[in-house]
Amino acid sequence: MDFAYSPRVQALRERLLAFMEEHVYPNEERYEEEVAANRAAGNPWQPTRLIEELKPKARAAGLWNLFLPNSPRAPEGLSNLEYAPLCEIMGRVPWAAEVFNCSAPDTGNMETLERYASEALKDRWLEPLLRGEIRSAFLMTEPEVASSDATNIQCRIERDGDHYVINGRKWWSSGAGDPRCAVYIVMGKTNPDAPRHAQQSMIVVPADTPGIRVVRALSVFGYDDAPHGHMEIELKDVRVPADHILLGEGRGFEIAQGRLGPGRIHHCMRSIGAAERALELMCRRLNERVAFGQPIAAQTVWQERIAEARCMIEQARLLVLKAAYMMDTVGNKAARAEIAMIKVVAPNVACQVLDWAIQAYGGAGVSQVTPLARSYANQRTLRLADGPDEVHRNAIAKLELAKHLVRAPEVEMPITRGC
Amino acid sequence: MDFAYSPRVQALRERLLAFMEEHVYPNEERYEEEVAANRAAGNPWQPTRLIEELKPKARAAGLWNLFLPNSPRAPEGLSNLEYAPLCEIMGRVPWAAEVFNCSAPDTGNMETLERYASEALKDRWLEPLLRGEIRSAFLMTEPEVASSDATNIQCRIERDGDHYVINGRKWWSSGAGDPRCAVYIVMGKTNPDAPRHAQQSMIVVPADTPGIRVVRALSVFGYDDAPHGHMEIELKDVRVPADHILLGEGRGFEIAQGRLGPGRIHHCMRSIGAAERALELMCRRLNERVAFGQPIAAQTVWQERIAEARCMIEQARLLVLKAAYMMDTVGNKAARAEIAMIKVVAPNVACQVLDWAIQAYGGAGVSQVTPLARSYANQRTLRLADGPDEVHRNAIAKLELAKHLVRAPEVEMPITRGC
Amino acid sequence: MDFAYSPRVQALRERLLAFMEEHVYPNEERYEEEVAANRAAGNPWQPTRLIEELKPKARAAGLWNLFLPNSPRAPEGLSNLEYAPLCEIMGRVPWAAEVFNCSAPDTGNMETLERYASEALKDRWLEPLLRGEIRSAFLMTEPEVASSDATNIQCRIERDGDHYVINGRKWWSSGAGDPRCAVYIVMGKTNPDAPRHAQQSMIVVPADTPGIRVVRALSVFGYDDAPHGHMEIELKDVRVPADHILLGEGRGFEIAQGRLGPGRIHHCMRSIGAAERALELMCRRLNERVAFGQPIAAQTVWQERIAEARCMIEQARLLVLKAAYMMDTVGNKAARAEIAMIKVVAPNVACQVLDWAIQAYGGAGVSQVTPLARSYANQRTLRLADGPDEVHRNAIAKLELAKHLVRAPEVEMPITRGC
Amino acid sequence: MDFAYSPRVQALRERLLAFMEEHVYPNEERYEEEVAANRAAGNPWQPTRLIEELKPKARAAGLWNLFLPNSPRAPEGLSNLEYAPLCEIMGRVPWAAEVFNCSAPDTGNMETLERYASEALKDRWLEPLLRGEIRSAFLMTEPEVASSDATNIQCRIERDGDHYVINGRKWWSSGAGDPRCAVYIVMGKTNPDAPRHAQQSMIVVPADTPGIRVVRALSVFGYDDAPHGHMEIELKDVRVPADHILLGEGRGFEIAQGRLGPGRIHHCMRSIGAAERALELMCRRLNERVAFGQPIAAQTVWQERIAEARCMIEQARLLVLKAAYMMDTVGNKAARAEIAMIKVVAPNVACQVLDWAIQAYGGAGVSQVTPLARSYANQRTLRLADGPDEVHRNAIAKLELAKHLVRAPEVEMPITRGC
Repeated sequence: MDFAYSPRVQALRERLLAFMEEHVYPNEERYEEEVAANRAAGNPWQPTRLIEELKPKARAAGLWNLFLPNSPRAPEGLSNLEYAPLCEIMGRVPWAAEVFNCSAPDTGNMETLERYASEALKDRWLEPLLRGEIRSAFLMTEPEVASSDATNIQCRIERDGDHYVINGRKWWSSGAGDPRCAVYIVMGKTNPDAPRHAQQSMIVVPADTPGIRVVRALSVFGYDDAPHGHMEIELKDVRVPADHILLGEGRGFEIAQGRLGPGRIHHCMRSIGAAERALELMCRRLNERVAFGQPIAAQTVWQERIAEARCMIEQARLLVLKAAYMMDTVGNKAARAEIAMIKVVAPNVACQVLDWAIQAYGGAGVSQVTPLARSYANQRTLRLADGPDEVHRNAIAKLELAKHLVRAPEVEMPITRGC
Repeated sequence: MDFAYSPRVQALRERLLAFMEEHVYPNEERYEEEVAANRAAGNPWQPTRLIEELKPKARAAGLWNLFLPNSPRAPEGLSNLEYAPLCEIMGRVPWAAEVFNCSAPDTGNMETLERYASEALKDRWLEPLLRGEIRSAFLMTEPEVASSDATNIQCRIERDGDHYVINGRKWWSSGAGDPRCAVYIVMGKTNPDAPRHAQQSMIVVPADTPGIRVVRALSVFGYDDAPHGHMEIELKDVRVPADHILLGEGRGFEIAQGRLGPGRIHHCMRSIGAAERALELMCRRLNERVAFGQPIAAQTVWQERIAEARCMIEQARLLVLKAAYMMDTVGNKAARAEIAMIKVVAPNVACQVLDWAIQAYGGAGVSQVTPLARSYANQRTLRLADGPDEVHRNAIAKLELAKHLVRAPEVEMPITRGC
Repeated sequence: MDFAYSPRVQALRERLLAFMEEHVYPNEERYEEEVAANRAAGNPWQPTRLIEELKPKARAAGLWNLFLPNSPRAPEGLSNLEYAPLCEIMGRVPWAAEVFNCSAPDTGNMETLERYASEALKDRWLEPLLRGEIRSAFLMTEPEVASSDATNIQCRIERDGDHYVINGRKWWSSGAGDPRCAVYIVMGKTNPDAPRHAQQSMIVVPADTPGIRVVRALSVFGYDDAPHGHMEIELKDVRVPADHILLGEGRGFEIAQGRLGPGRIHHCMRSIGAAERALELMCRRLNERVAFGQPIAAQTVWQERIAEARCMIEQARLLVLKAAYMMDTVGNKAARAEIAMIKVVAPNVACQVLDWAIQAYGGAGVSQVTPLARSYANQRTLRLADGPDEVHRNAIAKLELAKHLVRAPEVEMPITRGC
Repeated sequence: MDFAYSPRVQALRERLLAFMEEHVYPNEERYEEEVAANRAAGNPWQPTRLIEELKPKARAAGLWNLFLPNSPRAPEGLSNLEYAPLCEIMGRVPWAAEVFNCSAPDTGNMETLERYASEALKDRWLEPLLRGEIRSAFLMTEPEVASSDATNIQCRIERDGDHYVINGRKWWSSGAGDPRCAVYIVMGKTNPDAPRHAQQSMIVVPADTPGIRVVRALSVFGYDDAPHGHMEIELKDVRVPADHILLGEGRGFEIAQGRLGPGRIHHCMRSIGAAERALELMCRRLNERVAFGQPIAAQTVWQERIAEARCMIEQARLLVLKAAYMMDTVGNKAARAEIAMIKVVAPNVACQVLDWAIQAYGGAGVSQVTPLARSYANQRTLRLADGPDEVHRNAIAKLELAKHLVRAPEVEMPITRGC
């Protein structure tokens, strides 16, 4: 288990850090202002000029599509362990990953297409995604049922001649607010009477197919997360060619479990970056502000929180690296406990550090004056969007308990919309 | 220490519960829609028709100005202990208190005027406030300094003939976004060279005085809290007559410490209501939703949280009642430990219960579909706006430690903008 | 809900406080030394001279059998609400309650006899218990099964002519190490095939009945809790007259649920006293000790803990009072949620405060130099002995969830050995 | 940062695991019985036959003195990173480390002698310690002062001709109860007027020097930790030759800070082992016990705790490895933040996991029936004995805050008796 940076990662890391310093941090305010201006002008759902300006720069710097391992169409992709320290850095600013074409849910969708789609579908959708020309959404969660139990899914995908007809209602389809969002991957039931794990399928659906209606945008705490957004989408008699199904009927659960892996540990990597940045901001503030005759940093109650934050981040990062290392070396299935662990740990650590940082900043902490409240909203949402804590914990526990049983049970890992 | 409801409180409570059922809960969606429509139309900073419709109804029902004890101008006012169970009920919906003319920061401002203002100022400002015709703001916190230490305050109030001239920058002036907000109470330094506690003064400032500029609205998590809002305000050579000063030069700290009491425990009462409602929503959801073959409510991990929530709420409510009882019977100074305690406990309890409820609701919990995320933002903000937890805890600890010292030290209670 | 002290309670409280100052605190060291000397001399299982000296003094002071409400044989008994503040004070020193004939498990056993035994059994066993001449034990928990589920109980009580024959193995029979322990109340199954709640019975068993063997003493974190101890007891063909059964065959569960009430909230009252004393000791230590140039009490990290401790104790005490008040006014069944709540809250609060106090004392905290480690061991044990936290929480949650269901389920309250 | 086991470590690990299976686990009960028999016979302060039997076996298996890096006198010593997984395994049973001559405080004392003693002192004391023939104690902590602040130390070491004369009172001198304990390392002040960090010295003191009196044994919770024990020791005009001083007058603080490193991270490694074993025991119990018709392991409230335990242990172990790796590669000073972090994290994790395990076992958990309560007492004590959590956290925080200051302050690391 060697976590040392390879020379290539070392070089990329330096380049990425420089890029953040030069192009990202100085533009944080501009980003918010541009979105706010669009919102005030009546349409927040449009790409920002800022990110479009930065994307070619990132590509030119070789900081592009780093997330995708083992793909002939993206040879620049790194292993999970290599990608982890870079993804962490991107996570320091909520919108930064898109600059490097490394943002959710496109990364998960690209990986799903790369692994499970036909070459024709790859040519049609994966290529423009890899070029950063279009965006994509993943339609899994449904408003009416507990999505953590896959058999609850109600969306129907029915064969009709050489097409499939889709009917259902999905929500939390992140990114579907972006006008460039051209393609969906939809999960639904092709065979409700099949055994538990053979009921679902995944299918590729062009976003402009008739019958699709974006019902509304969901807010996250008070944020609309424009321009990408989180959408509720109605699918009514949506027809797509039969060859748009991924891998075959009844294999949706299998894909979801595969998707569970690499794509989705990216959130964890970014959570470390978000936590690290919050700690940095907290320390700066406490060093600067004076109360009752000394810097607030001199109060041991704050020192305790800083120390706890450092301990938590340090440990969570090591666990991310271990999970990534195992995914690379023994595969996602053997790494499933570590993947589930880091999915619980990383956003919880980030939430706690952010909460302390908010408290350190007082009113500035909850407002637009700092990036803290928004970051908290993101991280808090991960505790349920990327598979609820509870479901991951149950999976971890069952694997642990099974070590002490004569006959190990089959542990079903959570499937989620995650990225 | 008798917490039983008097017959009058019992009657008011029944009337209030009926009013909530008939007029408030059924209109929650309408409220959000009306504000959203105003926002979409370009101006969220206007009073809602809904609340204006409900105010006369509440007044007719005798549910008006219940918050103000011992005032000849509001004989309907209750003691703190009597008001607590009613205020809790109002706290179940964030905007409900205004319907009963019991909302912050007006309540704190009305109490301040009632206690410390001249009869002329009362006639001019207290009367329309008591009638619910105008609103008010409290300008204490400043963006550049740690406001928990009162000596940090930089706003200057300088005597110039028979006027005072005010220069400074304030923020988190809640309610100042409302066009009806006609009057401010401003805290600043009249004498920076006086002893620590004699530097500050409070002064009444009409909101339309030249030199006042509302710089911007601060968001709370992503919410603008329109129509009232939280404003940053610049005061530049703002002139007000010398008789607008409250109680006299150098007595601002004394008023702030007095204000600390009744006005500000209202937040705690409402926090109990917010927590109670979150628990109710959580139970309903867990009873309804099914995963892996049984209602989620059957899972002991959720039962543990429900039980903890019930224990926490029950205890916090009793502590609110004790604090209120002591304020009524032995006064705010003797009750200062209990006041500080409940200010730490109540919003923290509410935050924890809300966080569990959000987790129980999944995506619905963080979005506009439930009132949970907004309520969380409110309660989280109280942990710093109503005096940071840390400052209250220090005060509690010093009082506790002093019991075991030969000579008790003077414990300075936190002053805050609170309500 | 009136928590004010009646004049009688006020007088008793003053007398009890004086008694503690005069007779208990000054003898804490002597008590430990006397037990240690007995242990060193080869037999820790003998009553201390100290307590035997103090008992007549307590009785003379009218501080005797205060715990038992509504008993013609102990007219001095108080209501639960009256008893709470007195029991709390006794709880400040682990062995103090026995001085006042108010110690577990005798209190629970006396109450059980008073309510469910024949007059003949009362004459034989209740009277000497009320006089403090003998002691008693309660034999419920078994080593081989999860005792929180009453149907797991394996001890058999079989009718044989005009006798019952008992076979089984019990443990955690507290007090059975004391040579004065003359009588047991044993729970076992008379009819394993009856419906779930009609299988168990309770029976009175003289401790010298043939077939009884005290197997060993169980330690609690290294403490043997001599002289009373916690015993594992084997019952082999133990014969007792048929009229020794309480209330009748199959009614053991009913008695256990009745016992659940008053007897067992005493532990909670004493937990408050233990927590209060720990906080007091912690404050004293932090005021005295100096590090890096100032009293440790000046460090905000310790102030935070003191404040949290004060908040937790204050709330827990109010909840104890509420539970006691409800037991007195609406009965144990209507108060079952409050009883379960305080059983979770009180020992957990005490454990947390004790843990902080131990940390404040450093090495002295874990050793015999302070009473803290022993008190921690006691309180930690209550989290499982007096019904495990988990079982109480499930009961609370089910009552809470039932409020939001159309048809309320029957909630089975935990039965435990508790006192 | 490569955590992979070298072939040598892999081989040692397998040999150690086999040794534990063959010789340690099967003898746990025997160990307790042997000590209990000694205690009952009037003298618990004597070495066990069991450990003396096992030591030659361990030595023969090459499992001896593995802890000491870079010593010509113990060439079998491993690096910290190599030693970590072995030390963890030893930590699964409290007395196991002594079997391998790897137990505290001898390891810290041996390392101190190896690094700072003259060859003559090494010949006299280090050699028999390395052979496991004698034991040693470290006399630093004092009963009257807060030892976390080194300037508080009151023990005097005064030059008198070619001797030093020592006067003082020490406690928590672990291991000094063992009759084989032949040598002490004593910390005291040679020059109270020197600058803060030049006041203390360390000196080697034969245990049989006149003037030394072992006052009493301190208990840890209720355990005496016989046969080694934790002793309070009076030193009255104790004379030792001047050449017994280590490194020179005034260099005690420097040695303490050096000692802070390798010797003392061993506790952390063993804490991981203790936590891992507690989790294992907890899982077994929950799999076995049935309540309300299903194994308790099926309850999600327990699954949550198992998962949290696994997450915590996994992260703490990685942090131990990182700290060990840094100590080996960049040295103790550069690793001081990581050392402090793991000193907070490891025993806290162990305490939490043990507390859950105790709860899972009910009464068995707090008693002698399981090793859990004793292990809890050990781990809880580490939170203060090995440097209080608070002092480590402050050091971590100061290093963190310093990253964001223009001029970094000097951070004083805690000195403690630790091992």
